[in-house]
Amino acid sequence: MGFLKNKEDIQQKIKSLRKSSPTVTELVQGILNGDTAALGRGITLVESTNSSHLENANTIIESCLPKSKNSIRIGITGVPGVGKSTFIEAFGKLLTDKGKKVAVLAVDPSSTISKGSILGDKTRMQELIRNPKAFIRPSPSGKSLGGVARKTRESIILCEAAGYDVILIETVGVGQSETAVHSMVDFFLLLKLAGAGDELQGIKRGVIEMADIIVINKADGENIKQAKIAKTEFERALHLYPPKENGWIPKVLTCSALNATGTDEIWEIIDTYIAENKKNDYFTIKRNQQNMYWLEQTLDDRLKNQFYQSKKVRSLLDTMTQNVLEHKVSPFRAAEELLKSYWNANQ
Amino acid sequence: MGFLKNKEDIQQKIKSLRKSSPTVTELVQGILNGDTAALGRGITLVESTNSSHLENANTIIESCLPKSKNSIRIGITGVPGVGKSTFIEAFGKLLTDKGKKVAVLAVDPSSTISKGSILGDKTRMQELIRNPKAFIRPSPSGKSLGGVARKTRESIILCEAAGYDVILIETVGVGQSETAVHSMVDFFLLLKLAGAGDELQGIKRGVIEMADIIVINKADGENIKQAKIAKTEFERALHLYPPKENGWIPKVLTCSALNATGTDEIWEIIDTYIAENKKNDYFTIKRNQQNMYWLEQTLDDRLKNQFYQSKKVRSLLDTMTQNVLEHKVSPFRAAEELLKSYWNANQ
Repeated sequence: MGFLKNKEDIQQKIKSLRKSSPTVTELVQGILNGDTAALGRGITLVESTNSSHLENANTIIESCLPKSKNSIRIGITGVPGVGKSTFIEAFGKLLTDKGKKVAVLAVDPSSTISKGSILGDKTRMQELIRNPKAFIRPSPSGKSLGGVARKTRESIILCEAAGYDVILIETVGVGQSETAVHSMVDFFLLLKLAGAGDELQGIKRGVIEMADIIVINKADGENIKQAKIAKTEFERALHLYPPKENGWIPKVLTCSALNATGTDEIWEIIDTYIAENKKNDYFTIKRNQQNMYWLEQTLDDRLKNQFYQSKKVRSLLDTMTQNVLEHKVSPFRAAEELLKSYWNANQ
Repeated sequence: MGFLKNKEDIQQKIKSLRKSSPTVTELVQGILNGDTAALGRGITLVESTNSSHLENANTIIESCLPKSKNSIRIGITGVPGVGKSTFIEAFGKLLTDKGKKVAVLAVDPSSTISKGSILGDKTRMQELIRNPKAFIRPSPSGKSLGGVARKTRESIILCEAAGYDVILIETVGVGQSETAVHSMVDFFLLLKLAGAGDELQGIKRGVIEMADIIVINKADGENIKQAKIAKTEFERALHLYPPKENGWIPKVLTCSALNATGTDEIWEIIDTYIAENKKNDYFTIKRNQQNMYWLEQTLDDRLKNQFYQSKKVRSLLDTMTQNVLEHKVSPFRAAEELLKSYWNANQ
């Protein structure tokens, strides 16, 4: 009966764990004390789709919000194979060596843990995962980018309240997710590879324009020469863009994440950038703009959802779309018809 | 009493003009016959903000829609001073010389006729304005880009029904209007100047990525060398962008609108582009995508307008915005509160 006894033991243990489930106040206190277990539990609540968790999640967020102003948020993107995990491993080590606490989050709406999401496979950051100054959390699951982005953005707040100095937010550079990440970070880093036509592959139009720095990775061994050529080409290209709102002209650097060379220079640039932007207030202005962006974006998404999910609209949308495509009505007229029926139904 | 008689004469004339105001059926027939007076009146109805005109405007549009498939729509943008009017004058002449009927429209939400809008000052296209194969219409007035864009887009339909082969849509390259124009044309042309730092001035981020062709204007006299250098620089830069959805890599050309050199080559490229895209169906695919874009965009704008103009929202928005900026609530929570109060009020 040793087997049964063992089973009872385990059940007992689970029960006692459940009983010891911390209150919201305890969780908040834990997060503010930098307790990673509490932080993990808090993020789980924020990520939960269970509506009974919503109130607790909101309480935690609002308790953490006032403490969330003193970090640097860095977005990192690049196509698969560019070496994002290796880069974050090297860059994270550099930062923790400098005494900084580093949190790594991700936005990847397509991923689920079972599908091997970015950061899901923690073996790819073996050193950082064991580093007591680092906290790594895979992308929250979810099909809608809006939902995933919201969860990550609120997790940032919890990490900041827990005292993390630098928040790295990873995303794959192949969808709409870069725009979402770009709108939640202070600095946006684009990883690229030299040569092999990579300049033309995979990366979405518009991502280059978002970058505050372009880092040519894998500048090691035989690649060094190619990387330097790519650097010059990008520098030349970036000069044809207008400077950013704060006057910043994006930098181009080479680096070998594998050999951990070049990362120090990257950090110096980011550090200087942040210091300057704090001095001229652009740091706060941008964060405020981002908050307004997320307020508007959320309103927009929810208004649209409500509209497209209404019965009236669903029964009419196909016909109206067809009429537009068959040149029977203009898109503007079709929109008016749909809105009329939606608003009549809701009155 | 010669003066009074004259005045009565004029009043009589105005009355008889009013009486002879054509019916909607007559207007549509006139437009389909290529009568520019009918076309002008039709567009005036489409542009009207008088709600009593709406039904007639819709009837006209829907009668014209089935005839609106066989034109080429070209968007033309560039910062003020780049020579848009001169370019359109030269390019329009080239096209009419080739036997094409050319309509010139504009999207410029900031303009009113009194403020000297683009195309408002018709003296800038002296030749084209007298050309019987050309039809020029200034930007509809209006403060909201959405409204102005809708009017222009519906005017395109009327012009196409009137038999215009090429529709040129001009916009100033300094706002959101390029995105609107880009979403209503088959081909997007960006005018630039060589040298003098123009590459970095004025033009908005993202506009370069929209261009199907970049034309370096004023490549004449002493500027020719500079223009050629700029051409090479842009070609090199564009190679760092991924190709467009249809595989197109944007071209760079030089031209002198003043001397009408280079325009023929530009037309050849556009003509070939359109022919190829009609063959591989991308032409129709893109037009359908654009129709869907305008349907969604209109729904989106109207839903947001309704929301932001509601009393409940207006009374709460400032407080919620302030709470977000003061880090009291997250933008997501603020959005939920606003929506709750909006939806409760509407039930």
